[in-house]
Amino acid sequence: MKVARHVRALTPYTPGEQPGSRRVVKLNTNENPYPPSPRCAKVLASFDLDRLRRYPDPLCGALRERLARIWGTVPERIFIGNGSDEILTLAARAFVEDDEAIGSLDPSYSLYKTLAAIRNVPFVPTPLAADFTWNGRIAAGGRDGKVSLFLLTNPNAPTGVMADADTIAAAARRFPGVLVVDEAYADFSAANAVPLVTAAGNRNVIVMRTLSKSFSLAGLRLGYCIGPEDLIEALYKVKDSYNVDAVAQAVALAALNDLRWMNANVRKVRRTRAWLAKELARRGWDVPPSESNFLFARPPRRPAAELFEALRARRIFVRYFKGPRTGDRLRITIGTDQEARTLLEALDALGA
Amino acid sequence: MKVARHVRALTPYTPGEQPGSRRVVKLNTNENPYPPSPRCAKVLASFDLDRLRRYPDPLCGALRERLARIWGTVPERIFIGNGSDEILTLAARAFVEDDEAIGSLDPSYSLYKTLAAIRNVPFVPTPLAADFTWNGRIAAGGRDGKVSLFLLTNPNAPTGVMADADTIAAAARRFPGVLVVDEAYADFSAANAVPLVTAAGNRNVIVMRTLSKSFSLAGLRLGYCIGPEDLIEALYKVKDSYNVDAVAQAVALAALNDLRWMNANVRKVRRTRAWLAKELARRGWDVPPSESNFLFARPPRRPAAELFEALRARRIFVRYFKGPRTGDRLRITIGTDQEARTLLEALDALGA
Repeated sequence: MKVARHVRALTPYTPGEQPGSRRVVKLNTNENPYPPSPRCAKVLASFDLDRLRRYPDPLCGALRERLARIWGTVPERIFIGNGSDEILTLAARAFVEDDEAIGSLDPSYSLYKTLAAIRNVPFVPTPLAADFTWNGRIAAGGRDGKVSLFLLTNPNAPTGVMADADTIAAAARRFPGVLVVDEAYADFSAANAVPLVTAAGNRNVIVMRTLSKSFSLAGLRLGYCIGPEDLIEALYKVKDSYNVDAVAQAVALAALNDLRWMNANVRKVRRTRAWLAKELARRGWDVPPSESNFLFARPPRRPAAELFEALRARRIFVRYFKGPRTGDRLRITIGTDQEARTLLEALDALGA
Repeated sequence: MKVARHVRALTPYTPGEQPGSRRVVKLNTNENPYPPSPRCAKVLASFDLDRLRRYPDPLCGALRERLARIWGTVPERIFIGNGSDEILTLAARAFVEDDEAIGSLDPSYSLYKTLAAIRNVPFVPTPLAADFTWNGRIAAGGRDGKVSLFLLTNPNAPTGVMADADTIAAAARRFPGVLVVDEAYADFSAANAVPLVTAAGNRNVIVMRTLSKSFSLAGLRLGYCIGPEDLIEALYKVKDSYNVDAVAQAVALAALNDLRWMNANVRKVRRTRAWLAKELARRGWDVPPSESNFLFARPPRRPAAELFEALRARRIFVRYFKGPRTGDRLRITIGTDQEARTLLEALDALGA
């Protein structure tokens, strides 16, 4: 047969629905409701076509220098990817032998399990407590489950719950493999693990960031990570030659030069998050404390799957993950105040 | 150790130099000397920032429909990648088992060997004849060398020499694995293998194209391939969720809607190619017939490596590949007529 066995057996990851029409309330893929910095539009409008004729900078030099300045580190500790999705794929290639395994929290970002299947190694889940908190232990897995790469989303998705820096540091000390802290949502939270990564002595922790959420640039595909030089170098060795296009490099740089814009949007999202969480709790929903741009909320009266469909029929898109740990909740992206009001009105009308 | 063994042992692929200054004659990375269609600039200038806020179309629907119309096939037979580099990486993932091997012509695109090393499988070269022609046989390799993926650049790089459709068809019939015909340069040649791929009965041939060369969009990272539905589906299963960003999708569509622009640039490159080949031959260089946008030419008097450095000192960049089959030649990208004249003047001054 021509298609590899493990690929034939593969169930691909399903991204959240992207409805064609814009006349929907779209709270299903954790996109930012506010537009990216107007500087991005300026870069696009004045983009020199001659830069498209030539290959882009394969090492994203300007972006790495800007990020090094932002985070108080050196460019050699920074890797830029075609979205953090690409960085995850490269990490699975660079830090996992054929007889090792990939682990993550359970529940967490469901792509991780697909990643392990594509890499053709076992996936080892580390179950969270009932309240979705983590004690800092990484499950070793069964027979062949020597986990050499652990993917820790923090704040976690789809739960929104966050582990503190001490828990992560302790886990990293005990863990012999590479610990990737996927901080896709960290701009929406009060803390992050970057100090842990840039501290002297860190040998196995990588922090990963994306411009998709807080910078409102999901359409651009720009992710990066910060880590020890030898691990960053390994990622550069296994990447495609020119993995980030010239336009994406320029637009991302413009966004990173306007942190004030991003921070203002983040503040608005956090305000809406606090308000929506309170309103849902007032209606009897269970809402774990979220440090991200979504809530993972359990409806008190109607089954989550049923509500998901009822909302969809009203052109309100949220996310539903079936399964024992997730099937009684909805993951609701924080949109604008108006979108939150529309959602609450619909829930009230549905008796939820 | 934290970095996988085969990655520690890896020598990464080295792309051609991208000199910072623009005041050079850059004939080293097979870029098109003419700019992309002005429609691309229009798309950038009027790009709706709201499209960057949201995730891009993960399946590149509009692009696939346009390409299906161009090639007389259906969107289901088309895959879009973040450059054809990404498609090669995905093919190595989808069509190769851990105990199989990857093959290509020798000499050919040197990235292929790196790809096999990243995939952690053997690389099996198929040697070309002395005049760089291919007899349509694929080497089976040694002990473990069960080649399941053969990467045929056609026209070949760095030689520029082309295999005809009958040779490819015969090779495909005999070959039990997947044959990827990398047609990065096919717009510059008189024929291509697309009819072979879209013909009923094709089960194992994929043709790969890029917008980097003929469409002058190397900076955009847009490649695609056409093949049997089951193979295309396997590529979709192993790709990252959103592998092509929203801007790249829109700009590529604009370029594909202006084939006339691309064809006009290709005609100019072919004219310059014929003239430069004649001028080099007149000076005693050996110039194999090129169907691409470069010449792979052997200087008659001075060693190629020495000439490469002497040209570089004059800010003229060409490409030199050391090695027994390639070390006596220079690969010279076809630029503008003016660039070709500057090159010839420099060669004359250097007594080459």
